Amino acid sequence: MSVLLEFSIFPMDKGESVSGPVSQVIKLIRDSGVSYQLTPMGTVIESETTEQALELVKQSSELLQQLGARRIYSSIKLDIRQGEMGRLAGKIHSVENRIGTVSTNQE
Amino acid sequence: MSVLLEFSIFPMDKGESVSGPVSQVIKLIRDSGVSYQLTPMGTVIESETTEQALELVKQSSELLQQLGARRIYSSIKLDIRQGEMGRLAGKIHSVENRIGTVSTNQE
Amino acid sequence: MSVLLEFSIFPMDKGESVSGPVSQVIKLIRDSGVSYQLTPMGTVIESETTEQALELVKQSSELLQQLGARRIYSSIKLDIRQGEMGRLAGKIHSVENRIGTVSTNQE
Amino acid sequence: MSVLLEFSIFPMDKGESVSGPVSQVIKLIRDSGVSYQLTPMGTVIESETTEQALELVKQSSELLQQLGARRIYSSIKLDIRQGEMGRLAGKIHSVENRIGTVSTNQE
Repeated sequence: MSVLLEFSIFPMDKGESVSGPVSQVIKLIRDSGVSYQLTPMGTVIESETTEQALELVKQSSELLQQLGARRIYSSIKLDIRQGEMGRLAGKIHSVENRIGTVSTNQE
Repeated sequence: MSVLLEFSIFPMDKGESVSGPVSQVIKLIRDSGVSYQLTPMGTVIESETTEQALELVKQSSELLQQLGARRIYSSIKLDIRQGEMGRLAGKIHSVENRIGTVSTNQE
Repeated sequence: MSVLLEFSIFPMDKGESVSGPVSQVIKLIRDSGVSYQLTPMGTVIESETTEQALELVKQSSELLQQLGARRIYSSIKLDIRQGEMGRLAGKIHSVENRIGTVSTNQE
Repeated sequence: MSVLLEFSIFPMDKGESVSGPVSQVIKLIRDSGVSYQLTPMGTVIESETTEQALELVKQSSELLQQLGARRIYSSIKLDIRQGEMGRLAGKIHSVENRIGTVSTNQE
């Protein structure tokens, strides 16, 4: 099974710029060892079970609370599919096989 | 603490109408004993911890797999706030206190 | 055609409580004359075209800017379906026909 | 002003694999000339107005209807901020300045 989870999470009571606490969340994801990709609007992770993926959301919310957030907002998407892992790259390859090269990185 | 979680979840491989499997998910939520409200676009639950709320998402995805779904999509929002429970009604009351009666039910 | 659009929108730079500006957005929706329902996590509207529904999101973002927001976040879901209008009530009835009464209002 | 809009959109009545119609939506975005980035869970676009960004969502839904979809689901996030464009790369750089290199591409 392949579970793709995309999420953004941020404190609502820390003002216009949230890159400080959000960076700590991304550090948590990176340090967890899960396959992930940072995008301009969130982080996509791939895991073998829904439980593993949701566990990282829970840990992220707890980290923001430890950093002092009194209110936290998160938006999450799940795409759970029977079959093999490898869809972080695989889904984009599937599109490029059909319509040619697309923009996948702005750096 | 009050955790509001709104989510929709459905199989992608069962055709245009998904009310059969979706009804089973809502039955699971209702039977869990959590405070919840069904809306035209999802289900909102309130719990005291993020873990409890995400556990119901996990169980919902497992139920759809047991019902034969090969691919499942879910969209989730979290609003985690320090303070008392009771926000399923409280957030709407807070709006109505400011602007008067609003539509909260179409039945 | 029936277009259901669920959305939440709020300023990110106005602190923990956003019920003031959010109430003004809901007033805008109510005054527009569209069929809508307020939920604890957003507002669901039904329209005959996707354009009409998205126009209200655009107007909502402009209103928050006029109220002084420097950064705005919004989460939106669309369910566009061939067939008749009336799904604000219809989708919930469809579930209740299958599993019996569910909680649809906390007030 | 910089408007970041992330969205996924797909037919619900075309079975487990939706890469055919989804690729046509991404082609529409690419051909529009907007700044965009494909991710494993959606497409992020940046525009100067909310109207421009939402217009592409509307066109995408119309395209899927023309391709025969009877029911369409879409999940959308908006991050609207005063200030300069360039946030497709800028937000990721802001994170990397704080915690070092992160994974931004799986290809």
